[in-house]
Amino acid sequence: MKEEIKSRIELLRNEIKRRGLNAIIIPQSDPHQSEYLASHWQVRRYFSGFTGSAGTLVVTLSEALLWTDSRYFLQATQQLEGTGIILMKDGLPATPSIENYLKSVLVRGNVIGVDGWLFSINKVNSMIKTFKPAGIKLDTTVDVVDTLWKDRPSLPLNKIFEYDIKYAGKDAAVKIKEVLARTSGVGVAFISALDEIAWTLNIRCNDVNCNPVATGFLYLSSTGSVLFTMPEKVDDSVKAYLQSKGVKVLPYSEVAKFLSEVKEEEVYIDGERSCYAVLQLLGDKAVIGNSPVAMLKSCKNEVEIQGTHDAMVRDGVALVHAFRRIEAAMAEGKRLTEMCVADILQDERSKQPLYFDLSFETIAGYGPHGAIVHYEADEESNAVIGTDSLLLIDSGAQYLDGTTDITRTICLGTPTAEQRRDFTLVMKGHIALGTAIFPEETRGDQLDALARQFLWKNGLSYLHGTGHGVGHFLNVHEGPQSIRLNTVPYFMTPGMITSNEPGLYLEGKYGIRCENLVLTVPAFENQEFGKFYKFETLTLFPFDLKLFDTQIMTDEEIAWVNNYHKKVYAKLSSHLDEESRAWLAEKTKTLTR
Amino acid sequence: MKEEIKSRIELLRNEIKRRGLNAIIIPQSDPHQSEYLASHWQVRRYFSGFTGSAGTLVVTLSEALLWTDSRYFLQATQQLEGTGIILMKDGLPATPSIENYLKSVLVRGNVIGVDGWLFSINKVNSMIKTFKPAGIKLDTTVDVVDTLWKDRPSLPLNKIFEYDIKYAGKDAAVKIKEVLARTSGVGVAFISALDEIAWTLNIRCNDVNCNPVATGFLYLSSTGSVLFTMPEKVDDSVKAYLQSKGVKVLPYSEVAKFLSEVKEEEVYIDGERSCYAVLQLLGDKAVIGNSPVAMLKSCKNEVEIQGTHDAMVRDGVALVHAFRRIEAAMAEGKRLTEMCVADILQDERSKQPLYFDLSFETIAGYGPHGAIVHYEADEESNAVIGTDSLLLIDSGAQYLDGTTDITRTICLGTPTAEQRRDFTLVMKGHIALGTAIFPEETRGDQLDALARQFLWKNGLSYLHGTGHGVGHFLNVHEGPQSIRLNTVPYFMTPGMITSNEPGLYLEGKYGIRCENLVLTVPAFENQEFGKFYKFETLTLFPFDLKLFDTQIMTDEEIAWVNNYHKKVYAKLSSHLDEESRAWLAEKTKTLTR
Repeated sequence: MKEEIKSRIELLRNEIKRRGLNAIIIPQSDPHQSEYLASHWQVRRYFSGFTGSAGTLVVTLSEALLWTDSRYFLQATQQLEGTGIILMKDGLPATPSIENYLKSVLVRGNVIGVDGWLFSINKVNSMIKTFKPAGIKLDTTVDVVDTLWKDRPSLPLNKIFEYDIKYAGKDAAVKIKEVLARTSGVGVAFISALDEIAWTLNIRCNDVNCNPVATGFLYLSSTGSVLFTMPEKVDDSVKAYLQSKGVKVLPYSEVAKFLSEVKEEEVYIDGERSCYAVLQLLGDKAVIGNSPVAMLKSCKNEVEIQGTHDAMVRDGVALVHAFRRIEAAMAEGKRLTEMCVADILQDERSKQPLYFDLSFETIAGYGPHGAIVHYEADEESNAVIGTDSLLLIDSGAQYLDGTTDITRTICLGTPTAEQRRDFTLVMKGHIALGTAIFPEETRGDQLDALARQFLWKNGLSYLHGTGHGVGHFLNVHEGPQSIRLNTVPYFMTPGMITSNEPGLYLEGKYGIRCENLVLTVPAFENQEFGKFYKFETLTLFPFDLKLFDTQIMTDEEIAWVNNYHKKVYAKLSSHLDEESRAWLAEKTKTLTR
Repeated sequence: MKEEIKSRIELLRNEIKRRGLNAIIIPQSDPHQSEYLASHWQVRRYFSGFTGSAGTLVVTLSEALLWTDSRYFLQATQQLEGTGIILMKDGLPATPSIENYLKSVLVRGNVIGVDGWLFSINKVNSMIKTFKPAGIKLDTTVDVVDTLWKDRPSLPLNKIFEYDIKYAGKDAAVKIKEVLARTSGVGVAFISALDEIAWTLNIRCNDVNCNPVATGFLYLSSTGSVLFTMPEKVDDSVKAYLQSKGVKVLPYSEVAKFLSEVKEEEVYIDGERSCYAVLQLLGDKAVIGNSPVAMLKSCKNEVEIQGTHDAMVRDGVALVHAFRRIEAAMAEGKRLTEMCVADILQDERSKQPLYFDLSFETIAGYGPHGAIVHYEADEESNAVIGTDSLLLIDSGAQYLDGTTDITRTICLGTPTAEQRRDFTLVMKGHIALGTAIFPEETRGDQLDALARQFLWKNGLSYLHGTGHGVGHFLNVHEGPQSIRLNTVPYFMTPGMITSNEPGLYLEGKYGIRCENLVLTVPAFENQEFGKFYKFETLTLFPFDLKLFDTQIMTDEEIAWVNNYHKKVYAKLSSHLDEESRAWLAEKTKTLTR
């Protein structure tokens, strides 16, 4: 394999020479700026051999380098060994950015090749701006993949299905109108993001693992819309359904021709989620703005909210069964590994009605593995669960009526004072954010410190965001809202579903994360100070009572835990058999000082 | 006066016609983008008759309009009555922005005149961008003032004085080097902001009320710097002092000629604080970036910090005397007005060693006046202080060794339960922000919600920022840091002095604000999570014990008040006579449930 990677890099280098380029950048991306990719688009993985979900390969005439972040330093070190590819540890002060590296090794007049289908408009514009003062040019038409990638997987050909209005809650024809009303008066839009297309048309598919989306582009116009996708994916009934919403289907391969010949004077596109090739094809007709879909999709309607409530009950029931099995296996002295834990959770979820898929690969990390933020156990790392340390389980499912995402940190033995203190500091932040009330037009980044304040007071912190948006039977990560350190120019708005997941990761020891999904709802309104919003917790599963240190909790915080646990029991108990009910009663018993 | 204003507007309109313009915008500004203006630059005030500190006049061929914010709605209504100038209430949803208004009344090909000396580079660029799609042009060379303003006050001719190194703590020659090191390698800078010039050169003056700055521009170069100012302001000793730091003095009137002929290839300027005329004069030589002075000035050195500590003791002593006099006058049944209160404070401060000036006009607002955020009592509004409502006093002074800014809200009778609850909600936010610990690279806007959270939970809020930077014997408002709702891309850094001033304003009832100045200092550092910072309180004066509702306070909050009061007593008591000491002991006695 190492030799195979070497020869692939050599093929790339030959191509660079043949085209008169000086470097090429191969990102982890697709023409839809997806976070997770269908195998057809795993281009960076193919050429580098590195299988992590984030990373960019840069090849010059003399070197090959791969930038990835701290989650993958270990894995990348192992996978790149012997390939000649240099690992660039992103985020370390000593590591230059890709742009700065290229500026340092290239000279005035050099040209960097990128595939305009794999980079967003905003990203390409930013690169052009960065390289311009150094006299370095960008050739955005360099698609080397099809010629160089032998046995490239085909485009995903899974069947698209109509997403029932009884779950979606709003007709696609209405959604199309609402989207077009958000195009700054242009009235015509071209949508590239797969979850935005799925939401707008009320269709789903399973092209990307855990993400129920269909590969395609969507052209929207009041005089006739077009879904560009692979013809094999659309059977007659779906074609008829789309036709009834004014949407005809054309082959995915025809999108470039269509855009270059489009008759409209202006077409509205999203600079963040549209690739640069789309802009090049539209030329002056392109009107670039924010996504016309993102806010509509993010603010769930009543049917979506009720569906999510229902899905949470089934998810909670599945978790009761799963955690009982995990405890029982431990009690029986069975050898339980991280992968076993993940399997048990998937097994119990898959037994639930309306289950479709996981919403992401389950993270079950015991002890030091819990401190690796995006850890996913494999045959090699797969640790046996013990009773000394903490077990962090981050998991979720796609149900037809909603998407779940929950993290619980548990101790299967007797926790140490330090473990309890650390867990409680995280929970205090979780509670502070979960009980926040805030005026309309508040951004997520304004609330972020509420979740971090108690860790900060103890010199502790976590480097990931505190909350991401969650789709409705769609991607478990969606925008535009986000609760994080960096500024995000979108307001927390009623109907948004967002995660509340502060954490703490102590390298070599353990990881803690406490995650519920919360719904933004109105709190109150007064004449003088306007509207206020708050969060309603959607997730239904207890936190590990053993891990609370009530000595550092306020009465209000203890009451919050007890009220939450009371609600969990009330919502789940009638769906459980007697033994499970007794188990849940024990897990939700009153927390006292 | 009304007729006079009408004729001035008419003169402006004739000038608009004569120059072939369609509108003119007259801002509240000077060539240094100052917040407070010398009388020479009160152009908007002259033409509109409106005396508020914020507002912009727009004159078209058919209309004259003045935009100002809610602080001044009442005052502007009165002052504009009969002048024909339309009041545009900024911030109300129905009020268009100036740009949108002009786009709606002007047509393609029209030209708006502005004086490039009165608008920042960033502001002009933003206006050009806004007007361009509408085909409206900007003529930035329209200086109508000198021809139309009869009896215009001269440029301020107050004497500049050297600011003693024993207070400044760092030599001007060193500062010049440090500033030039922050010019992205350009090595030459042109500084327009008056407080930045004063800080860099260790000079002070009193050109602007309460702001100890000198009018001028500063050209910095390692081969020879130039201060452009009025020759009358600089006597021989100051000239010699500046010369010793490599700075020669040229007349203020020669700055334009100098810039247009400058020999250097590149000159670094700040896009926010340099006016557009400077950019036009420099042309391609201008390298625009962030201020090279702001961060240096904001992070106080040890001498400045010690000086501020010392000034705080004297300010606290002055306030003890002043508040005692206020209480005594009330006890004697004297008629005490808001203006009397301001006079007493100024009188006591002016008796203190090293007193130079107030740092801003004292705000003393009783009852409903306290709810007007930037209230300043005048002969007409001047209310008599009573015992039923709250008295808000926001005041500060310029001492040679530091600048103070403190707000206390007191009740001279027996407060109601509602007053106590509201005050305590504000104080809980003040304490939460004051006791925050946070990692390095934290912006002020990330901490802002800590101060607002308790008000928000009760459907209450305040619309101003929570904290502004404070200069060292310089402007009481300085950047770049700020604790506020909006994003501010600067980190809270050790040495910064910032106000902590949450508030609550109930229209027609009362206003509450609790303000201390705090210093950012290191908290601790650990290997895994890096450096953490916290705030050290600088201000020394008790909060009104009567106003605390301990029922809604945590033990930690009560302890904070008691510890703070203990410190106030410890620092001030030795500087007080016996009676004042007894008064302070009573005011700082232990708060209990």
